[in-house]
Amino acid sequence: MLKLFYANGTCALASHIALEEAGAQYETVKLNFSQGEQRKPEYLKVNPKGRVPALITDKGVLTETPAILVYIAQSFPAAHLAPLDDPFALAQAQAFNSYLCSTVHVAHAHRVRGSRWADDPGAIEAMKLKVRQNMTECFELIEREMFAGPWVMGAAYSICDPYLFTLTGWLEGDGVDLASLPKMQAHRARMMERPAVSKVVAAHQV
Amino acid sequence: MLKLFYANGTCALASHIALEEAGAQYETVKLNFSQGEQRKPEYLKVNPKGRVPALITDKGVLTETPAILVYIAQSFPAAHLAPLDDPFALAQAQAFNSYLCSTVHVAHAHRVRGSRWADDPGAIEAMKLKVRQNMTECFELIEREMFAGPWVMGAAYSICDPYLFTLTGWLEGDGVDLASLPKMQAHRARMMERPAVSKVVAAHQV
Repeated sequence: MLKLFYANGTCALASHIALEEAGAQYETVKLNFSQGEQRKPEYLKVNPKGRVPALITDKGVLTETPAILVYIAQSFPAAHLAPLDDPFALAQAQAFNSYLCSTVHVAHAHRVRGSRWADDPGAIEAMKLKVRQNMTECFELIEREMFAGPWVMGAAYSICDPYLFTLTGWLEGDGVDLASLPKMQAHRARMMERPAVSKVVAAHQV
Repeated sequence: MLKLFYANGTCALASHIALEEAGAQYETVKLNFSQGEQRKPEYLKVNPKGRVPALITDKGVLTETPAILVYIAQSFPAAHLAPLDDPFALAQAQAFNSYLCSTVHVAHAHRVRGSRWADDPGAIEAMKLKVRQNMTECFELIEREMFAGPWVMGAAYSICDPYLFTLTGWLEGDGVDLASLPKMQAHRARMMERPAVSKVVAAHQV
C-alpha cells in the first residue's frame, strides 16, 4: 500500500489531497518537524534529503511534490487529475507546478528557512523582510497570467489545484492579505467545499 | 515550428540540448541578459516571468525547464528521452529534475541573484559565502544517492542528463572542484562525446 510521509504546515499537503482525490488506498506517517524528525537516521533512510513529502510505493520511494503529483495522476487515471495524453496541456500543468516549487515555495522559505542560504544572522533577518513583497509579486502574476479559473487549468480540476491551495495557505503567515487576491481567495473557498480537501486539511491540523 | 528563447549561461541549455537530441525541427532566439533583454516589454509578452527558457509551440508558450523537458520527450517519442509509460520511472526522472530546479538551481542563484531575496547589500554578500558549501552538499547527495550511472537514470539516456549537465557546468564558477565529484566529472565528459551536446554547447559560447 502507498505510504505518505508528511508534516503539518508543509507542501506535503498537496500530495495528501491528491491521494484522497484519486481514491487511492494509502496510509500516512506524520513527522514532527519541531522535534527534527525529518533529520533522524531512520527517516534519512527513507528520504536522504530530509524533507517531505516522501511517498513509499511498491517499487520504491518517490520525493518532490511535482513528481509525486504526476505519479498519482498517472497511477489513478480514472480520477482525471492531469491531461496525461495531451503533451501541451500536461506541460502547462507541469509549468505551473514547477513555478510553485522553484519560485513560490522558495520565496516563502526565506521567511523561516533563511539559514539554508546564509549563516549571518543579519542576512537571515534581511531575507525575512522581502518575503511579503516576493510572495505578493508571485501571486499577482498567478492571478493575472496563470490562473484560468474556476480551477488552475480551467474547467477541469487537476493536480495543480491542491498544490496552489497549499501555497495560498501560507500567504497570511507571509503577511499577504488574501483579500487582495480575489481569484486566490475564491479558489481557497472552492477547494474547501471538496470533501477530500476538507478531510485532509482537518488531518493536518491535529 | 518550435522556437526556443534562451540566453548563454542559463538553464535553457538543457531544453536546447533536448530539442537537438529529439531530432526536433526548431529555431532559437538568443536573449542578451547583460542588456536586460529578458525584462523588455516584447519579451514579457512571450514570458511574463522574464526568464528563460521559453518554448513557443503551435498551441502556445511553455516555460519551466522540467515541464519543457517532458513536453519534448512526449512530443518526440521515437527519441526515447523519458520512460513515459512507466509511472514510477517517470516520477523518478521528474523527482530528479524537480530537485535540480527547486534546490540546486536555487542554491546556485544565491551567488549571482541574491537581490531576489534581500535588498540589504550585506545580506547579498552573505548569501554568496554559502553557495560553495550548498552546491557541494547538493552534488555530494546526487553522486551518493541519485545518480545511477552511466546516465542519471541508469542505462538509458534521458531528459535528466542535459539538465544535470547544465548545472554541473556551473560548479567551477561556484567554487566547487569538479574533480571531487568523479561521477559528475565522468558524466560531463560522456555528455560532451554526444554530437547533439557538443553542437549546442558551441552555440551557447558565441
